[in-house]
Amino acid sequence: MSTQQLRVTFQPSGRSVFVLYGTKMLEAAGRAGLTIQTPCGGGGTCGKCRVRVVSGACDATPTEQQGLSADELAAGWRLACQTRVCSQTVVDVPDSSLFASQQRILTDSAAARGELRPAVRKRYVELSEPSLADCDSDLERLQGAVGPFKADLSLIRRVGRLLRRSGFKGTAVLTDNTLIDFEPGDTTGACYGVAFDIGTTTLAATLLDLCGGSELAVASRMNPQVSFGDDVLSRIQHASNSPENLEQLRECIANAIDGLIEELCLQASVPRQSVYEIALAGNTTMQHLLCGLDVAQLGAVPFVPVHQRGLLLPAAELAAAIHHSGRAYVFPLIGGFVGGDTVAGMLAAGLGEADGPTLMIDIGTNGEIVLAHEGTIRAASTAAGPAFEGARISRGMRATRGAVEKVVFNETDIELGVIGNVEPIGICGSALVDLAAGLLETGIVSTSGRLLPPDELPAGLGESLRSRVRAGDSGQGEFVLAETGGGPLALTQRDIRELQLASGAIRAGISILLREAGLSAGDLQHVLIAGGFGSFIRRDHAQRIGLLPGEVDHRRISYIGNASLAGARWALLSTDARKRAEQLARTAKHVQLSEDPEFQMEFAEAMIFPERRRQ
Amino acid sequence: MSTQQLRVTFQPSGRSVFVLYGTKMLEAAGRAGLTIQTPCGGGGTCGKCRVRVVSGACDATPTEQQGLSADELAAGWRLACQTRVCSQTVVDVPDSSLFASQQRILTDSAAARGELRPAVRKRYVELSEPSLADCDSDLERLQGAVGPFKADLSLIRRVGRLLRRSGFKGTAVLTDNTLIDFEPGDTTGACYGVAFDIGTTTLAATLLDLCGGSELAVASRMNPQVSFGDDVLSRIQHASNSPENLEQLRECIANAIDGLIEELCLQASVPRQSVYEIALAGNTTMQHLLCGLDVAQLGAVPFVPVHQRGLLLPAAELAAAIHHSGRAYVFPLIGGFVGGDTVAGMLAAGLGEADGPTLMIDIGTNGEIVLAHEGTIRAASTAAGPAFEGARISRGMRATRGAVEKVVFNETDIELGVIGNVEPIGICGSALVDLAAGLLETGIVSTSGRLLPPDELPAGLGESLRSRVRAGDSGQGEFVLAETGGGPLALTQRDIRELQLASGAIRAGISILLREAGLSAGDLQHVLIAGGFGSFIRRDHAQRIGLLPGEVDHRRISYIGNASLAGARWALLSTDARKRAEQLARTAKHVQLSEDPEFQMEFAEAMIFPERRRQ
Repeated sequence: MSTQQLRVTFQPSGRSVFVLYGTKMLEAAGRAGLTIQTPCGGGGTCGKCRVRVVSGACDATPTEQQGLSADELAAGWRLACQTRVCSQTVVDVPDSSLFASQQRILTDSAAARGELRPAVRKRYVELSEPSLADCDSDLERLQGAVGPFKADLSLIRRVGRLLRRSGFKGTAVLTDNTLIDFEPGDTTGACYGVAFDIGTTTLAATLLDLCGGSELAVASRMNPQVSFGDDVLSRIQHASNSPENLEQLRECIANAIDGLIEELCLQASVPRQSVYEIALAGNTTMQHLLCGLDVAQLGAVPFVPVHQRGLLLPAAELAAAIHHSGRAYVFPLIGGFVGGDTVAGMLAAGLGEADGPTLMIDIGTNGEIVLAHEGTIRAASTAAGPAFEGARISRGMRATRGAVEKVVFNETDIELGVIGNVEPIGICGSALVDLAAGLLETGIVSTSGRLLPPDELPAGLGESLRSRVRAGDSGQGEFVLAETGGGPLALTQRDIRELQLASGAIRAGISILLREAGLSAGDLQHVLIAGGFGSFIRRDHAQRIGLLPGEVDHRRISYIGNASLAGARWALLSTDARKRAEQLARTAKHVQLSEDPEFQMEFAEAMIFPERRRQ
Repeated sequence: MSTQQLRVTFQPSGRSVFVLYGTKMLEAAGRAGLTIQTPCGGGGTCGKCRVRVVSGACDATPTEQQGLSADELAAGWRLACQTRVCSQTVVDVPDSSLFASQQRILTDSAAARGELRPAVRKRYVELSEPSLADCDSDLERLQGAVGPFKADLSLIRRVGRLLRRSGFKGTAVLTDNTLIDFEPGDTTGACYGVAFDIGTTTLAATLLDLCGGSELAVASRMNPQVSFGDDVLSRIQHASNSPENLEQLRECIANAIDGLIEELCLQASVPRQSVYEIALAGNTTMQHLLCGLDVAQLGAVPFVPVHQRGLLLPAAELAAAIHHSGRAYVFPLIGGFVGGDTVAGMLAAGLGEADGPTLMIDIGTNGEIVLAHEGTIRAASTAAGPAFEGARISRGMRATRGAVEKVVFNETDIELGVIGNVEPIGICGSALVDLAAGLLETGIVSTSGRLLPPDELPAGLGESLRSRVRAGDSGQGEFVLAETGGGPLALTQRDIRELQLASGAIRAGISILLREAGLSAGDLQHVLIAGGFGSFIRRDHAQRIGLLPGEVDHRRISYIGNASLAGARWALLSTDARKRAEQLARTAKHVQLSEDPEFQMEFAEAMIFPERRRQ
């Protein structure tokens, strides 16, 4: 077992990620922002997720040997849901293996649609040197070649020297209509940007080549603000206590952003000063905190944000060390807690042009729900809490090495899938859903969420499962997944309650948006699951616990990965996309769930798990 | 004799200046930027310069008693060319006493033309407080009331608190489309700007009320950079030696600008933070130095400036302490040494709409010459040198207390007019021209500029004048104006050569511009004399020494005062005027005199004084 990070590069997008030995290709693709379709639920039976391994060793599993021909296997074809990363690998992903909705997200598709028009432009020019017959000023000389621009005093102070040192041959760097540098020689090939998804729990970032649109590196880390509280309200409270606290939170996220930029630039061997723009999408509170905006007003009714439109700021003011005159685009907000991450997701999912009633759910520390129907977009945010990201679950953890990421209930017992194939140390969100669905289905947990004591368990329950139910140290009931060196790994009664709260909040939100639009769940044509966590849940299990409405045919449910990050990426690559984001934020209807008189009722109802389905 | 500064306020413009006891009202008006017409040359005979003293004591002189009726005198009517300031005075200046061309310059005329549209706007708003039914963000709430705007992060960080502290009732301050502040309560009445003329030798500034357009205070001081050289080339050389030197020059002018702002605000009891914008017009070198731009390239052929268009900068970056987010507008340049002061002058003089061939001459340390003819504007700069501002003349000085400002040759001798009516300590530019004209007319100086030795003086020359000519200490000839406590006050042979150089450069420039336009001097319909010095020279004397072409009827020569300052003032009051300035700078044709093959010839010829005129 190696703990080495292995690089996997996906063609033709050029995206690459670093993953642990043994990671499923499906997961590696997901981490790279590519969502491969798995209509059979990842069982290796439908063959829709085929990819071709171009370089690197990936032995075919028995399932693959059954599903693919010898010729196909010899040519490197594998099933993404089966094959595991064992070395540095380059993989070809055919369009047919991607979700249709995913197509929109791809940067190369954006380019193909003629949308690759980043705000940052580079233009190599060879200017004529000044002479008596041609004694235009330095700025006018440059404008003659690259068109009109504005410039800051700091650049105006340097431009004369820059032009003369480079012999009047160099590369003008422009963001929109502002000249930010003049670099000696032709540097048009070196033009980069970084897109960020600023989650309450997790930060994800990706380095983009703004010339071709390809992705050069991806990285993520915990949001270090979690040490000040794991949900937005506790951070608002901390920041509101004093200006120093606000500055503390701002600085801590600024450092993390800066660290991610450094990590990405190292991965791809890109100099930081060649990064000219960053785009940041986060929920309202995260965006306010990273801009250093006062959040006290977000802590009290009517939860009024400082800004709604997107902000275009000097990156230096957010303490992000890129090019000294680089900029930061901070996404527009819809209102209240429905923030820039939701807008970015809407942009990536193309909700502005949805055909048929479309629901998008981003399950993170907060749950954001967006419903597009007949040209009207409704958006709401629920305080789902960080249960799905591992917090508030006694043995919860993020989907990293050692996390149980999958629980399969077989005829007599359970099997665990552990990330990195090591001894399990905790449970991540997707396994939590698997587990809850299985416990409901086997009758170990009642629809009210009660973990039955051993003497009340269903009569037909097998001995192996039965033995896993016991009273824990604290007296509350628990279900043991495994005995480990660090003691038993178990799900407690309290954990189930946390899950009910998180799932119920989202489900209630969905109900209210549907009702406002005059729709029922069965009318939904598309349900798009976004978010790092969302991409790995089993749809039928999510429906079993009531997180997703059971009335929707599971083929209408698709995963669109980290849509917020995809939207941020798009905003870096296309000024048109940025305009669309502003438009989406302005026109979307903000539904304040907490103010809906029926929300509490809906919430209470949604907390009850659905009845056991008829088999 | 009091050395106290007395305030004189001119109605209806509201401008006021502080002058010394005994200053002629004509001069006080000139210092306030008002040019009163004096077709008779200030002799008190034509009665065109009448003004009415509304408050303050001004005894009528015998000349006034002769020229005005008893009723008029009793009503306070006086002649501006005769009456002197003896106390705090308020004076009414009828339009009929002003030069027609001056009308254009007046701020109130600008207002009357509907041009009072400053870039700075204030808008008092009473916003509805956020509620559940109205939970727009802070910025959108404000934009709903005052229209769309941009804002810097520093303001976005404060806006939530500003709105809440003021109970959502306050005054939005906008520069163009940028919100720079939100002040509690209604502060729309407090909105100020400062206009600057940044001369090589003298700085002049005026504080404007941007609401009504009136002028509240005027101040001037030496350009402290003179300690690094009295002309632009020596400052360019100093600044080019090291970045520290450039910074030294920048800082020294920045401090002076800041000092003037303080002085003006004190005079008018205006808080500095209510000054939101400054406008600065100076020659190319001065503007570059105050912006901290590299001037090395201005020191060598082909004299390429860094910028040509006007710059709109944060005032804080020029170290001018006004409102913390206030701005500085730096005038556009025409090219080479034809700078923003010339553009401002062209703006104020309305050269874009001149009827008939019009020549504008701004005589300062450099001499700028502009010729408007049939829609084409040609502009040139000559290195006149600072002779007219008192430098390089052995006893030269600026037009301040103790300066001989007028020399009258009577039948037998000379009479001196001294500023402040004290013992003379030096000679200022206007007296230099009087003196040279008189010396030429009496034959004491030859047309070649030679100060004749006593034995060569004309036979008919009176004894008093003859006795003033002698060999000075250094052996060169000199003409003594007065014996003073500090020794003799004299004009030397060398001083006459300096005057020849300065005057010849301007005259040669005029000739070349006229020739390029296919005109002769007699074709000129208007000759506008601008500049602090220009306003006080006697037109016939300037023609006598060849500084102004003798072919022009002297009634076509008029004074327009400090047109550069007037243009800067106008740019503060009107964004349309600012656009016109940009247009004038872009379309004016820059004539590089030094590159004209005939300039040296013209210069050599212009150095020779004109022949004695036929009487």
